[in-house]
Formats: sequence, structure tokens, C-alpha cells
Amino acid sequence: MESEKKKVYRDYFRQDKLREKPANFSPLREKLHEVIFEAETPAGRWFDIILLIMIVLSIITVMWETVPYYYSRYLPVFIAVEWLFTIFFTIEYFLRIYSVYKPRYYIFSFFGIVDLLSILPSYVALVFPGLHSLMIIRGLRLLRVFRIFKLDSFIEQGNLLIYSLQESRKKLTVFAITILLVVAIFGCVIYLVEHPTNPQFESIPMSIYFCIVTITTVGYGDITPITQAGKLLTSLLMFTGYIIIAVPTGIVTSNLMMQKSKMNTIACQVCGKEGHAPNARFCDHCGHALE
Amino acid sequence: MESEKKKVYRDYFRQDKLREKPANFSPLREKLHEVIFEAETPAGRWFDIILLIMIVLSIITVMWETVPYYYSRYLPVFIAVEWLFTIFFTIEYFLRIYSVYKPRYYIFSFFGIVDLLSILPSYVALVFPGLHSLMIIRGLRLLRVFRIFKLDSFIEQGNLLIYSLQESRKKLTVFAITILLVVAIFGCVIYLVEHPTNPQFESIPMSIYFCIVTITTVGYGDITPITQAGKLLTSLLMFTGYIIIAVPTGIVTSNLMMQKSKMNTIACQVCGKEGHAPNARFCDHCGHALE
Amino acid sequence: MESEKKKVYRDYFRQDKLREKPANFSPLREKLHEVIFEAETPAGRWFDIILLIMIVLSIITVMWETVPYYYSRYLPVFIAVEWLFTIFFTIEYFLRIYSVYKPRYYIFSFFGIVDLLSILPSYVALVFPGLHSLMIIRGLRLLRVFRIFKLDSFIEQGNLLIYSLQESRKKLTVFAITILLVVAIFGCVIYLVEHPTNPQFESIPMSIYFCIVTITTVGYGDITPITQAGKLLTSLLMFTGYIIIAVPTGIVTSNLMMQKSKMNTIACQVCGKEGHAPNARFCDHCGHALE
Amino acid sequence: MESEKKKVYRDYFRQDKLREKPANFSPLREKLHEVIFEAETPAGRWFDIILLIMIVLSIITVMWETVPYYYSRYLPVFIAVEWLFTIFFTIEYFLRIYSVYKPRYYIFSFFGIVDLLSILPSYVALVFPGLHSLMIIRGLRLLRVFRIFKLDSFIEQGNLLIYSLQESRKKLTVFAITILLVVAIFGCVIYLVEHPTNPQFESIPMSIYFCIVTITTVGYGDITPITQAGKLLTSLLMFTGYIIIAVPTGIVTSNLMMQKSKMNTIACQVCGKEGHAPNARFCDHCGHALE
Repeated sequence: MESEKKKVYRDYFRQDKLREKPANFSPLREKLHEVIFEAETPAGRWFDIILLIMIVLSIITVMWETVPYYYSRYLPVFIAVEWLFTIFFTIEYFLRIYSVYKPRYYIFSFFGIVDLLSILPSYVALVFPGLHSLMIIRGLRLLRVFRIFKLDSFIEQGNLLIYSLQESRKKLTVFAITILLVVAIFGCVIYLVEHPTNPQFESIPMSIYFCIVTITTVGYGDITPITQAGKLLTSLLMFTGYIIIAVPTGIVTSNLMMQKSKMNTIACQVCGKEGHAPNARFCDHCGHALE
Repeated sequence: MESEKKKVYRDYFRQDKLREKPANFSPLREKLHEVIFEAETPAGRWFDIILLIMIVLSIITVMWETVPYYYSRYLPVFIAVEWLFTIFFTIEYFLRIYSVYKPRYYIFSFFGIVDLLSILPSYVALVFPGLHSLMIIRGLRLLRVFRIFKLDSFIEQGNLLIYSLQESRKKLTVFAITILLVVAIFGCVIYLVEHPTNPQFESIPMSIYFCIVTITTVGYGDITPITQAGKLLTSLLMFTGYIIIAVPTGIVTSNLMMQKSKMNTIACQVCGKEGHAPNARFCDHCGHALE
Repeated sequence: MESEKKKVYRDYFRQDKLREKPANFSPLREKLHEVIFEAETPAGRWFDIILLIMIVLSIITVMWETVPYYYSRYLPVFIAVEWLFTIFFTIEYFLRIYSVYKPRYYIFSFFGIVDLLSILPSYVALVFPGLHSLMIIRGLRLLRVFRIFKLDSFIEQGNLLIYSLQESRKKLTVFAITILLVVAIFGCVIYLVEHPTNPQFESIPMSIYFCIVTITTVGYGDITPITQAGKLLTSLLMFTGYIIIAVPTGIVTSNLMMQKSKMNTIACQVCGKEGHAPNARFCDHCGHALE
Repeated sequence: MESEKKKVYRDYFRQDKLREKPANFSPLREKLHEVIFEAETPAGRWFDIILLIMIVLSIITVMWETVPYYYSRYLPVFIAVEWLFTIFFTIEYFLRIYSVYKPRYYIFSFFGIVDLLSILPSYVALVFPGLHSLMIIRGLRLLRVFRIFKLDSFIEQGNLLIYSLQESRKKLTVFAITILLVVAIFGCVIYLVEHPTNPQFESIPMSIYFCIVTITTVGYGDITPITQAGKLLTSLLMFTGYIIIAVPTGIVTSNLMMQKSKMNTIACQVCGKEGHAPNARFCDHCGHALE
């Protein structure tokens, strides 16, 4: 079951098929493969860490550049640093294609496309400067940060969370649909009440936006009710949001605990079944005594 | 126990009595009944899905129409689309009456009235244009969305949630009354403190509205305290809201977990042990096969 | 154990000593006592319900009166209705003194003082009109609403909640002190950062008020940071508030569940096994009959 | 395990090494040591309580002084009170050095440095008046408030909370990184959508700040989206924040419950009784020694 879990985690971004080594594969490519795609060797670990730092730094550069104060003063520096990252990521991209077991599979995988999209805008912007802002796609490379969880004991904790949320999926969907219904109906009613006297509630979609701001307890205050009936309805909606938040919390908590108690079990020596009750003395699948 | 649960769910909107088939019932009506009221056949399932999409689209049309930008430009389109939906829903309404086992029961049931009310405004608006906005009642038809949960495995999850909330009813009522008391008393005290210097706290109901905005952690900021005593009291109220939210969460979580452990219980016929794993085939205490 | 719980609940507002009946007590006083202080007879139940409605109505009147629109139009009506309630509550107060077993104990009990304070302002306002607003003290009479929980099955649920919160007392205190420390320290740091450029952060107490508004996720927006360092610190504080809310929730939830499982625990006299199902009649471990 | 836990708590601020008594230690120093560093004797307890009150009062003075209204009126009073506290804390600091078992260890310990830093600003401000605001460092002395938990039964509760949070560390880190990713990606997308028409979203860092304000449900309202796409994205982000808050809550709750059941479970070998106090050495049911 342990290995199964690891598999699930690895497959989460469909990276697993990349691991079948082809027959004719030079030692150099093999060495590169180890460094770039595996994290078990020291070199592979360092590559992952350096890559992550590079990604984070490149994202910070793209973000920083948008601050007017720095943009007007340090534009040449930003352009230089950006090209530095672009060249580094371009080299990395081609090394990946060169050293991966199944290049075609990698190129059309989620991360393959993200890797390509994160370097393309720099080159495209040379011809069409307006597309420069697409460089933000580079942000998606941040998802590689999850690879770091492979490096150490975070993997088990991450799995537990992912499993719990997967188990909660259906209940959370039921909950989300209910919330959407509540918000849609409240939005219509508050629109009817507030629209005649309050120009802020200019349309039903705007009124629903207000209801979402309210039920999630965010409360910007850019739109607020002014009629007495509107305030009463809003109060009701606020209480709904305040109490109903208990539902997703309850769902996730109870699944997390179930998951945990499931994980604390002993496998049957005869049939291999896991997931017995904590105080089980016999396997509940084949009836054999547990050790 | 399984069937009992399903029954509870079906009865939730009093639809169950509609299922008793009368003696003289033509094959056409029977066929229509199957398509419209049941979801077990492929045709019935498709009907439900198409109907839901139509409902959602009609709601979106009504909402969209209220946006000033689109209203002024595309009014004729909106009118045409609305009539399309109205005619479709009118046909559906009469087909329902024609094919249901007990027409009178359906007409006066919750969904029967909602179905009627969702088509009436279009016709009434021909005579009294001011009543056009009543078309929003169509929004209630969205409740049919819950029928989709019958289509698949959502039903068990939905039941679990409904049961948990039903079990929590009394505790949540005690909690809600306590909150209302806290809000009323705080509202009076903050009114006394803020009213003399802050025109925003113009009356006690307004002050209570402010307390609700605060204790639910929504915090629009349309009304804020300006005196030092008012800010101190508000701080207290914010902490109350922040910590007290733990109570409904705790109530729902513990009920959800109780519910879950209850649902996984088959007693062993030999030793009577309960609390086996959900998919247990043998008693984990005495090793005897479970029924 | 059942009776012990009821006692705890009854003693919550120190009403229990009132129940020792003195020797010389006329049948009329006894009858009145039953109606006013007990809720077991139909008359007593009706008295409680009517009284509660009267209290709620009188509070609504006091609150309503403060709304400028209604105050200017219906002042005479408000005055008349207020005197009606005052006279009713005055009669009730003297009947209570007349029919209670230990008048002195009642007069100086919490509810005795609240009952007196809720009628005094009307009479005092005849001489000193400025003290009219004290009538809001009447709001404290709303606490009698908790008596309604005695009327039905709410009592068990209320007890459970009170017990859980009592058990959580120490942990919640530790948590509250930690939060206060975090808020105080953050308040000082943000003051140092924002004060020079942002006049809204005019003093450390104001800065702490801002931190409370932020950490409880209320977020009025009356004070907001404008410097980059201030925004960074505020982001940190928001995350702290967002994640730390898990702690009181966790505390209350785990206590609620402990409480619940405690309430269902009878140990087997033979094998000592605990944790049976709530309605178990035989030990699920050794099969011996439970007491 | 018991002693280990206590050790962990004591070592939390590295105070434990201070407890090894040196050979040549005069009775006066020993007496002072008992009063200042221990809390078991009445004198030691009173010293701790008085010290805490002094710290709290000194902090309130520093905070109060920053309020413009009081600063302009009572400056001489503030200066006098501040010097009073400074002299008291200076005497306390030297007495601590005099009476501690290992002065060097104390001076360079966390609390030793905080104690020194809390008195230095007053003296430094005599020469450089601008550094007066550093007196706020005194706020860190508030951490001594946690010592009060040693005084009574708060220690067990505090331990439980600290342990639960330590166990949750990895899961909360995974969660925090996920949130940061979500916020960064949403920040970029909303910037692309809102920046062209809304000057409030002036840069990506500002847009990320907005996303943090939104996902934590704080919602100041200082920055709000104005385009339709921006409002849609913000709605999505609000729902994310509203539902995702369930994750840290679930993590902490399940760990708190695990912790609790771990701390209370040693079954008696004779009577099988469970649920003894954490530090029980004998079964509280039959009196037999626990293993």
C-alpha cells in the first residue's frame, strides 16, 4: 500500500510513464537523466533545489518589474536578468528533451508544455512586444515546487492531505452547489429589495457578487445595503456564511481522522488486507488471526 | 436501513406519494412518466440533464438582462430567448401534469407550484409589464439541481450531510440564540458609547447590524467605531466572533464523525461485535463470517 | 449522573437555593410560585412563554424608538407601549417577591437585580429625563430566554455545549493570551513602520486595534497599510489569523467529541471493557450483561 | 515520556541549563535565586506575578504615550513613570545576574538579551533622543507571561497545544506553500485582467497583496476589482479561501485528538481500566502498579 501511495503521488502530474528506460541510451544521457529527473542522488537533489531557486527568482523579477517605481528606474537591469533566466531555462528545456526516456511524452505532458510556455514569451516579445506580459505564464513553473516534497518526509503528509481532499470531493461538491444556490437566490431577492434605492446593486450578477463577498465573510464594503430590508437580508446571509463554514471544516476534519486511523493498521499475513479496525484481532477479509 | 435512508432523501421534498401508479394509465403516459419523473433509464437521465441545463441557462438570461450594458443593447434578443424558455417550460409543465400518477398532488406540491410560478410571470407581464421582475422566481427551479444527486453516488454523501445537520439542529439553535443575545446586548452598549459622537450609529438596530457585521467577521467597514471605548468594545466583539466560530464547527464535525461511524456498523451474528471496517467480510473479533 | 447535570445547569445562575419551601406558605402563594418559578405545569409553561414574548417585544420597542424616522413620527405610541411594559413588569416583579420562597435571596440574585433594573429607568426618567436610555438594561432580561431550554430537550444539548466550553477553558485562555501577545507585538512593529508616512496609524493602541481587525479576519478597511513593509507585515498577520483560527476550533471540536464519548461509556463489570455503543445492553467483548 | 514532555516545555526557551547549582553559592544568592527564578515558594510566586503586572503596566505606558491626545498633555508624567519602570527593571536585571547559577548563560540566553534590551533604550535615549521608540522592545518581555503557565495546571494544556502544533508542522507547511502558490498565480492573472482599467492594481505585488486580503477572508476593501472578469476571478478566490480554511482546522483538530488519546491511554494490566491521568503510576481503579 505504501508503494501504491507513492505511485499515486507520482502520477499526480502524469510523470510516471517517463520512467521506463529505453534500450539504446548513452551513459551521458543516463547521467543527465539522473541529475534532472531523479532526486535520489546528491547531484539530482542539488539540481532540483537550484532549479527551484531560479524559478522563484525569475518569478520575483517578473513581478517586481511591474512596480512602476522600479520599472521606470531599473528597466535595463530587468531586461538583462530576464534574458539570463530565459537562456538558462531554454538550455534546461533542451537538456530535458535530450535526457528524458520518452521525449514525445515529456513534450506533450503538463510540465513539458509549461516549461516551453515559460520560455516562449521572451522570444515572441522580440517580434510582438505587446505579448511581453505573457511571461507571467512562468508562474506555473512554480508548481514544480511540489517536487521538493519528494525530497524528504513531506511526501507522507502531502499524500494524507491529497487523499483526504479526494475522499471529501463528493461532499464538498454537494456543499459547493448548495452554496451557489443560496447565493443565487439571495442575490435575486436582495436585488429586488435594494435596486430601486441603491445604485450600487445595479444588476443581479453584481448582487450575487455582493452575496459571495458576504457569505464568505470577506466583506470588502465596496457594495453595502442601505435599505432596512436589505440590511436584514444581509444579516441573515452573514449568519448563514458564519455557521455554514462549519460544514467543509467538518467534512475535511472527519476525513483526515478517518484517513489517519486507516493508516495505523496491520496487514494480514495471509491475504495482505490492510485497513482493519484499530483493535482487530482477526483479519476481517479472510478470518486469519492477525499477529 | 439503506432503503430507509433513501426514503428520507426522496421524501425531503415530498415527492414520494407521486410514485403510486393508478390503474388506467396509457402506455404513452407511462413512457412519458418514465422519462420525466424517473432517472433510471437513459432517456430519463438525459431529460433531467437537459432540463437542468435549460433551467440554468434561463436563470443566467434573467440575471444577464439586468446588467444595464447588455439590457440597452440586446433587449430584443433577451425577450426572444426568454419566450423560448417560457414556451419550453410551459410544454414541460403540461407534460408533467399529463404523465404524473396523481396530477392534483403534483400541482399543489412544492415543485409543482414552483414550476407554475416560473412560467406565469412571462404571461402576466404581457398585461402588467411591471411584474416582469417576478421572473426571478424561476430561480427556485434551481432546487431541482438536487435531483442530479439521485443520478449517481452523491446520494449517500448528501444524506450524510443532511443527517449530520439534522442531528446538530438543537445544538445549533442554542448557539444561534446565544449569538443573537450577545449581538443584541453588544449592540445596545456600543450604541450608548458611540451614538453621541458618531452619526453612523444612528439607532440601536443599526448598531446591532454593525455587531452582526463584526461578529461574523464580515467587516464591510461601512460603519466603524471612532471613540476609544467603542474600539475597545468592538475588539472584544471581534475576538468573540473569532473564537466562537469554533462552536458550530465543533458541533458539525463531531456529528459528521458520529454519523460516519454509525453508517459502517454491521454486528457479528456470533459475538455481536460492532464497528467493523466498512468492507469487512469477517468479524475482526471472533473471525466468524459476517452476513 | 443525569440529575447531577440538571443540577449544574440549574445552578448556572444560582437559582437553586430558591427552591427550598418555607413552612408557612399560603396556597395562593404556592400556586403563584408554581406558575412563575416552575415550568412543569401547563400554566407555568405558558407564563414563561408569554413573559419571554413580552421581554422580546419590550426590547424591540426600546430599539425601534432609537430609529430617527420612527422616533419623530410615533413618539406618543412608543411612550404608551413602554409604560404598558413597565407596568406589566412591575406587577410581575412584586408577584415574584410575594411568591418566592426566600424573597431576600431573590432580590439580591442576578436575575432579581436585573428584573428591578429593567423597570427602574422608566420611573427614574420621570424625574431625570436624561436617564431614559438606561431602559436598555432591560436587554439583560433576554438572558431569561435560556430558561426556555428547560422546557424541552434543549437542556441536554445546552449542557453538552457548556461542559465542552468549560473543559476548553484553560486551553482557550492559553490561546487568547498568545493571540494578545501576537497582536501587541505586531501592533508595535507596524506602528514603527507605518506611522512616519501613514497618519491613520496615529498611535500604538490604534495600530493594535488595526491588528485585531486584521487577525480576526474582520477587515473593516477603515485603517489600511500604505507602505510596502506595512503590507508585507499585514500579509503575515492575515495568514497568522487565517491559520491560527484552527486552534480554538480544534480545541472545542475535540472536547465536544470527548464529552460525547464520555456520555456513552459504561464499563463492563466482568472484563472492564469500555467504549460500548450508547444503547449496548451486553458487553461487546465478553458478552456479560451490562448493569 | 512524562518527564520528557516537561523537559521539552522547560527547554522551550532554553531555561533548563540555568538550574544546575554551582558549589560556592551564598545563602543570600540562593534565597534570591529561589524568589526570582523559581515559582514553587509563595515569595517566588508573588515575585512572578508582580513582575508580570509591572511588565504589562510598562508596556501600556509606552503604548499610551503614542496617543497624540495624551502625549501633548501628560508628557512629564509619562517620562517619570517610564524612568520608574526602567530603574525597577535595571535593579531586577542585576539581581538576576547576581543570583543566577550560570550568569554568562543567562546573559546570552533569549530572555537575558530581551531583559537587557528592554532597559537599554531609556539610557540610550538620553544621548540619542531619536532612539526612544526602541523602548517598544520592552514588548518582548511580555513573553514572560508564559511563565505564569508554570504556576498552575495551565502547563498540561499548553503542552498539549504545543505538541499538536509541532505534529501539524509538516502538513501546515505543505498547506502554506500551496496557498502561496495559489495566491501568486491568482495575483498574476487578476493583474492581467484588472490592470488595464483599474489603477488600484498597479503592480503584481499589489495584486498579490489583494489576493492575500481576499483568500484569508479579511477583505479591507482598499483594493477591489471593477471589471467583470476580475469580479468572477475574485469570487472564485473567495470560495477557495472559504473552503480551504477547512484544511488547517482539520489538521490541528485531528492532531489535538490524537494527542489527547495518546496522553491518556495506558491500560491497567489487572483491571483493564483505561483513561488514567497522564502521570498516573498506579491504576486509579484497582490500585495496581501500571507498567
